Amino acid sequence: MDAAPRSGCPINAAVEALGDQWSLLVLRDIIFGDRRHFRELLAGSLEGIASNILAARLRKLVTAGILSKQDAPRGQRGRYSLTEAGIQTLPILYALGDWGLDWRTGDPELRARQELMRAEGRPFIEAFMDELRARHLGAAPKPRTGGPGPLERLESAHRTAIRPH
Amino acid sequence: MDAAPRSGCPINAAVEALGDQWSLLVLRDIIFGDRRHFRELLAGSLEGIASNILAARLRKLVTAGILSKQDAPRGQRGRYSLTEAGIQTLPILYALGDWGLDWRTGDPELRARQELMRAEGRPFIEAFMDELRARHLGAAPKPRTGGPGPLERLESAHRTAIRPH
Repeated sequence: MDAAPRSGCPINAAVEALGDQWSLLVLRDIIFGDRRHFRELLAGSLEGIASNILAARLRKLVTAGILSKQDAPRGQRGRYSLTEAGIQTLPILYALGDWGLDWRTGDPELRARQELMRAEGRPFIEAFMDELRARHLGAAPKPRTGGPGPLERLESAHRTAIRPH
Repeated sequence: MDAAPRSGCPINAAVEALGDQWSLLVLRDIIFGDRRHFRELLAGSLEGIASNILAARLRKLVTAGILSKQDAPRGQRGRYSLTEAGIQTLPILYALGDWGLDWRTGDPELRARQELMRAEGRPFIEAFMDELRARHLGAAPKPRTGGPGPLERLESAHRTAIRPH
């Protein structure tokens, strides 16, 4: 755990853990991009995160109990998983993206996922957190009523919004 | 407006505007503490924000369209108001505090407001945003069914949780 918090306020606690220019984007790429390895996170970064910053943020998120790192045998790559605390950052990412949708312009293919979540509302977020528990924590998948799961639907919304060049 | 964003992602847009160790705490103190002047924000800061950091963050939030500053006659103090974009950061603060409530310890009197919001759910957040529109934007107050408004209820929850010394 980190040094003593600046105050006992729960908003401050979250800001201390997540309030910087990169941590929430790393979580976004793990959650929505299903990227679990350092090299994928580095190569796939839309915002061009630097290698040393990515390494520092991953370490910080592990220390904060938001990610866990599975040790890999010598010469193989370590794999990052969300903890339950990490999975529960999804409503924070949702709230941030919802604000961005209303108050900033952006690319249609990057807004499509957020628009889908807004249209579907809280039950979709809950179902996505269940899917993340199955993917990251090895929880038994919740029975679904058929059709694609939340991550597949998000990826499909993203692909559909990419205009042909 | 700021320089070009790092990407067209709506989550990134919000992180660029709000992702630092202080901006969201300044908004918290304006929203929940009803502090509208520089000196109140400085003197009342639980986390001990430094004067130069507070000045820089207020400037950044005005530039980002999240706060507006009312010019004051010479010798008087300027007053900050939330814009509509600023009022709509409340769901972000709520999501952060909700995470902090579950994943960090803290002081009962600082957790009481967040616990009230969690218990009351989304309609309370909506009513509080309406109250902020009346306080900050001069909107006509929405008719209420009697009883104290959201800010008064939050302050009362906070006071009740302060244990006698």
